[in-house]
Amino acid sequence: MRTAAALIIGNELLSGKIADENLVVLAGTLRALGVRLERAVMVLDELEVIAAEVRALAASHDWVFTSGGVGPTHDDLTIAGVARAFGVPVVSAPNIESLLRDYYGDRLTEGHLLMARIPEGARLVTGGSAAWPGVVMRNVWMLPGVPQIFRAKQALIQAELSGGAPFVSLAVFTTLDEGQLKPMLDRVVDAHRDVDIGSYPRWSGVEYRTKLTFDGLVEARVRAARDAFAESLPAETIVRVE
Amino acid sequence: MRTAAALIIGNELLSGKIADENLVVLAGTLRALGVRLERAVMVLDELEVIAAEVRALAASHDWVFTSGGVGPTHDDLTIAGVARAFGVPVVSAPNIESLLRDYYGDRLTEGHLLMARIPEGARLVTGGSAAWPGVVMRNVWMLPGVPQIFRAKQALIQAELSGGAPFVSLAVFTTLDEGQLKPMLDRVVDAHRDVDIGSYPRWSGVEYRTKLTFDGLVEARVRAARDAFAESLPAETIVRVE
Repeated sequence: MRTAAALIIGNELLSGKIADENLVVLAGTLRALGVRLERAVMVLDELEVIAAEVRALAASHDWVFTSGGVGPTHDDLTIAGVARAFGVPVVSAPNIESLLRDYYGDRLTEGHLLMARIPEGARLVTGGSAAWPGVVMRNVWMLPGVPQIFRAKQALIQAELSGGAPFVSLAVFTTLDEGQLKPMLDRVVDAHRDVDIGSYPRWSGVEYRTKLTFDGLVEARVRAARDAFAESLPAETIVRVE
Repeated sequence: MRTAAALIIGNELLSGKIADENLVVLAGTLRALGVRLERAVMVLDELEVIAAEVRALAASHDWVFTSGGVGPTHDDLTIAGVARAFGVPVVSAPNIESLLRDYYGDRLTEGHLLMARIPEGARLVTGGSAAWPGVVMRNVWMLPGVPQIFRAKQALIQAELSGGAPFVSLAVFTTLDEGQLKPMLDRVVDAHRDVDIGSYPRWSGVEYRTKLTFDGLVEARVRAARDAFAESLPAETIVRVE
């Protein structure tokens, strides 16, 4: 199974000024591609921390996706961090420089040109409706933190990582609470070790008390687990099956 | 400076089924207490992964706060993970058992009683409006993942970690973009190394193009950096100062 990790970079997130919006978007993209997102790490704008984290995550996962820190100011350290992780210098990409010159015209400053920086050896990924290329160093994608742009780049990931079977997700909603349904659930978990089964209590609302989720890459097995669990419940406690 | 890390646990987050809501709440709590949240890690429901992460984070930060995985089902592995991180067994807390017996009455099952599990040696933190105690093992707080309950527990953290000066946050909003303001910003950054300065481009909207933030524990220094930057901009490019 293909695996991935996310590295979310930015003081504004860990200081609580804003909530990250990008992880759930990336998670959804990877899920549909059948890639297992195993870990996400959020760090401050610190060069050595970013470099160490990129090095560790890139070595232990098929893909790493970073979010944030790719602008021209002093707190944008992702490009330098990835370069340091792989022991290469930062260089300016002529293709991106051209795009910047076209975009800014007479207003172009030295500051704007800093947005053309990439780790030496990185490749530019283009396609779809994304006006600007994605920057990929070996197995590390460097994505901008601005949520609108982060979302726009998902098409590049979808194009490049396509070909895998997506995860199948099914669910049972029940009026039983976790303490009540646990014996039935444990039997189904034991008999379906290849299916990822989750149990989520609902705190407010009266429609159901617990949502059970069944996930995997083999639809028949996911369906078998979901059905075995639903059949083990008293029929009147089942609100919905998906 | 006091430091903290967050460990967010749950397959439902990394599979993109739901977005985490708890980190930004914890970040705000810690910010107001003057505690620096340095890192957040999100992992799957895997015992060994949780244990290794707790061990690493607890050794490198003053406090660790976990979110999620404290219910009674097979995918709730936080209590066991923290116990394993510190090499202690999981035991049942008589005080929590009593609360569970009172709450569930005749409906009580063996499953419900599993919610009384704690790592041996953990202490229970009570107070405020929180009906249920917080569970703390050495410097590791184990908080529930359900957002309503996670928020309710913040009062316990506030009470126990109070006494520090909060961070001061000021800001300048300008119509300049990052490429334009970079030379002025770099000078202010160089002259105020003790202030955390951030630059955030706005993608949509016309009111301003960039928000500059100035953060630190010493208000006079934060104010000096903010004012020095504002004074370096052409007056007509300043939309707002906070």
